[in-house]
Amino acid sequence: MGIKLVIVGGVAGGATAAARARRLDEDAEIVLIERGNDVSFANCGLPYYVGGQIPRRKSLLVRTPAALSNLFRLDVRTRTEATRIEPAAGLVHLRDLDSGRQYVESYDYLLLAPGAAPVVPSIPGIDHPAIYTLRNLADVDRIKAAVDGGARTALVVGGGFIGLEMVENLHRRGLSVALVELLPQVMPPLDPELAARLHQELTDHGVEVHLSDAVVAFDGHDGQVRARLKSGSLLEADLAILSVGIRPESGLAREAGLAVSERGAIVVDEHMRTSDPRIYAVGDAVQVRDALLGHPTTVALAGPANRQARIAADNIFGRVSRYRGALDTSIVRVFDVVAATTGASEKLLKARGVAYRKIYVHRGHHAGYYPGARQVTIKLLFTPDQGRLLGAQIVGTEGVDKRIDVLATALHAGLTVKDLEDLELAYAPQFGAAKDPVNIAGYVAGNLLAGDEQFIDPSELPAASPASDGPDGQEIAGWTILDVRQPAEFEADHIPGAMLIPLGQLRDRWREIPTDKPLAVYCAVGHRAYYATRILRHKGLRPWNIAGGLTSYRLVHPAPAP
Amino acid sequence: MGIKLVIVGGVAGGATAAARARRLDEDAEIVLIERGNDVSFANCGLPYYVGGQIPRRKSLLVRTPAALSNLFRLDVRTRTEATRIEPAAGLVHLRDLDSGRQYVESYDYLLLAPGAAPVVPSIPGIDHPAIYTLRNLADVDRIKAAVDGGARTALVVGGGFIGLEMVENLHRRGLSVALVELLPQVMPPLDPELAARLHQELTDHGVEVHLSDAVVAFDGHDGQVRARLKSGSLLEADLAILSVGIRPESGLAREAGLAVSERGAIVVDEHMRTSDPRIYAVGDAVQVRDALLGHPTTVALAGPANRQARIAADNIFGRVSRYRGALDTSIVRVFDVVAATTGASEKLLKARGVAYRKIYVHRGHHAGYYPGARQVTIKLLFTPDQGRLLGAQIVGTEGVDKRIDVLATALHAGLTVKDLEDLELAYAPQFGAAKDPVNIAGYVAGNLLAGDEQFIDPSELPAASPASDGPDGQEIAGWTILDVRQPAEFEADHIPGAMLIPLGQLRDRWREIPTDKPLAVYCAVGHRAYYATRILRHKGLRPWNIAGGLTSYRLVHPAPAP
Repeated sequence: MGIKLVIVGGVAGGATAAARARRLDEDAEIVLIERGNDVSFANCGLPYYVGGQIPRRKSLLVRTPAALSNLFRLDVRTRTEATRIEPAAGLVHLRDLDSGRQYVESYDYLLLAPGAAPVVPSIPGIDHPAIYTLRNLADVDRIKAAVDGGARTALVVGGGFIGLEMVENLHRRGLSVALVELLPQVMPPLDPELAARLHQELTDHGVEVHLSDAVVAFDGHDGQVRARLKSGSLLEADLAILSVGIRPESGLAREAGLAVSERGAIVVDEHMRTSDPRIYAVGDAVQVRDALLGHPTTVALAGPANRQARIAADNIFGRVSRYRGALDTSIVRVFDVVAATTGASEKLLKARGVAYRKIYVHRGHHAGYYPGARQVTIKLLFTPDQGRLLGAQIVGTEGVDKRIDVLATALHAGLTVKDLEDLELAYAPQFGAAKDPVNIAGYVAGNLLAGDEQFIDPSELPAASPASDGPDGQEIAGWTILDVRQPAEFEADHIPGAMLIPLGQLRDRWREIPTDKPLAVYCAVGHRAYYATRILRHKGLRPWNIAGGLTSYRLVHPAPAP
Repeated sequence: MGIKLVIVGGVAGGATAAARARRLDEDAEIVLIERGNDVSFANCGLPYYVGGQIPRRKSLLVRTPAALSNLFRLDVRTRTEATRIEPAAGLVHLRDLDSGRQYVESYDYLLLAPGAAPVVPSIPGIDHPAIYTLRNLADVDRIKAAVDGGARTALVVGGGFIGLEMVENLHRRGLSVALVELLPQVMPPLDPELAARLHQELTDHGVEVHLSDAVVAFDGHDGQVRARLKSGSLLEADLAILSVGIRPESGLAREAGLAVSERGAIVVDEHMRTSDPRIYAVGDAVQVRDALLGHPTTVALAGPANRQARIAADNIFGRVSRYRGALDTSIVRVFDVVAATTGASEKLLKARGVAYRKIYVHRGHHAGYYPGARQVTIKLLFTPDQGRLLGAQIVGTEGVDKRIDVLATALHAGLTVKDLEDLELAYAPQFGAAKDPVNIAGYVAGNLLAGDEQFIDPSELPAASPASDGPDGQEIAGWTILDVRQPAEFEADHIPGAMLIPLGQLRDRWREIPTDKPLAVYCAVGHRAYYATRILRHKGLRPWNIAGGLTSYRLVHPAPAP
């Protein structure tokens, strides 16, 4: 008889580990334990089943228990809960949830893939029947039944991935949706100035967005659920989705004496082995290493869970394999806007005291001469010395996924901004440009590091204030602001108090620029302003380029409604 | 007075170099010489203007001479030809094409960006007025006039990028199109089994494709142009496009005594400097280094031309900068099919005697449970020892550009197939999968290198031949072929003479497999066959997995028409 492997948890990590184990060892005895009804289902697809984008429920069942069992010769036991581990004895206690039968299974190796549970805050009224969390097919069946049953309004609490995808899908079903988020922004991995694009997109679709707010109590009201917010607002809805975070399901591990982090994640080494040499753990429940900065972190993403599962199985069956840590590459679509990140955010770098520089690029996703180019915004973070990449964030409508994957690959490889200049990416008019936005990001970062350009962040400029001598009766106190676009662009919108000298006239008119205050130059996205600052530097001025131009400025300082 | 730089050629490389030079030095005197009417036009967009996808001609004019001149304070001289260089004296002889005036310009540095001219073979009748080449706006105006004037049939000679894009765009305008290509395949950078998808797509759209054939003579016939092919066929058309290759415009350089390669490309070092220290050259006319294999090559792509131009300007103005060589990343769309390559092809590796291994992956471009997943085919080439990437080719309809750019980045970084396993790419149902096709390619390649799998290429299997004992009365001589798909899939199509044991029954029925001949296993794409070979190996068999499954097999051995 071969190795006996018991796997607890049969969704992404558990099912992958079982399949890999079988390919490595045809003789092994592999028992797959799953508390729910289903194994190997498409948890990332659940919101889209509610929204009808995925029309058939069975599409979500990547493999049924029977198929999985047959294909890999597994002993699959659904509706079975692991209640206790005896590591010294190599035993796991199981309970059949239907019959109630309790029994014990021995193992040579145990692999834990328990996942993470939605956090349910203990606030009054939280047990209202119209409040749902979303983790598995049973949950999604309940939510879909409520929507199919005629719900017309919904409240989504929490603006992370699941919250945003639920907002979109409930909206697609015709519901009026309100979103409440504790932070001042949705999608926490993004920095706030990029998240602003998502806020705009939500608002444009009629979603009522409550940021920096929280539900303090629920109650029932005329057959609806009513949420009282910290701000005092009252929101009523036919159903509420709670997606305020997740918590590693590490109770079983902790009770077995395995090392668990302060934040409740199972501690594993690079082989995915826990503090017990015969027990491995993978997925949302484990603590891994941040691939770039090295600190411990958790990552609740399907890709890394699958990767970890394969690595755990390899190590169990005698193949040395290491997990390189998490980059936290992620992407979300909210209506037409796509937002994606890889590596560290500026927030994270600040919090961890890591020195960095940053640039922004706003650029068409393919050549401008070919119809249909849509702007992508790239924020790039890198080390101040060598320009080694630290992180990237992208927001746009088309071509976002491609650029984030290129940058995730660059991060994996430890590339620098100079490498981004050199990347030879595929160009045909429909697909890119002779200088791809990623190349441009490399160039702009290179200019910054070479001292060819200095940037001021729009968030660092003071807000506009009344001034008697400004052309709009307004000014950015303490700065001269120069707009180098065309007059028609200036008339359509400009930074309050800015003076206008179009780039083409700058060589003749630069002496008009006051020199008593620091000078900040901008255009639409920063490109013409770069040319302008090169000219002005030659004249002996020390201009700043407003990073990302008016496009970035308006993310931080929205234009007043017309 | 600053440095005086004269640039010969004002399209991609020349215009970029001029703009970069100005940003580096506001004092420099920069003279931009262009023989044609236009500078800085979108040459990659020309076919799409003929086709109407780019409706406005002025979209193609990225910058007019006046705009370029004003923006960068350049002395732009269009319709001016450089006729001779005196390197020792630092002089270039110029001729105004309109007035005929000849004069001399001195330079501190000279930058040559002359591009490449379409090859026009010297065959009888080549001067027929309905035969066109496509290089600039004047050419495209003539072609568009012919199409607008009612041309109904077209002949395209040469199936490279421009030829294929012209086929598509002429077809879009309603013309019946025939394509003649000297090689047995279109798009020469692709290996033939992937080019087969393009042949199919062309044929499906009614394009008459003549491979391994060539025009030996043209003549006029009833107001049309008539081509006589080597094969004896006669093709008549209202217009013919010649796109059989390009030739570096290196005459000026050669006559000046600069080093020029046997194939006519201007020799430059990694700084883009020619054999004369004051003369630089960039773009389609120069010989550069292959970034992976190191041999000299030429690359006629806009991205590298721009990159080289910036590097040349940097070096001229005192910033040391190096060109890392060409990966030859390219992409073409032909109707709905997109084909892309980066790095070396199998053909090139064979020709250069480089040891390699290869794998194929056929996989949905995003998660299968989300509607709309389309198959992408990835061919990956890598070193036999460490699995270092050597090249990749992708064919599909969606998501091709993303994967080729990820792989181009991986090639740039010197990554291995193991790195592809580890890449953490962005996954949401619309954008990818928990295991992206690139990750899968890494896994399959890793299996090959680890000895977990052995592949036989469909092209290495003998063609099917009549056999009395085969289930179809056919066999692949010398092999046992095992199909592990479902019976319905087998009935729809299978390799002639194959026996069927569905994967789920294999553990019970493997003893039915004859052991007198080598065994090749396949499924649709190679995934289930991998599982099957793992099981069979455990039983002591040494099965081969038919690389890429029936999907790859049918690229090499098309199914008989029903």
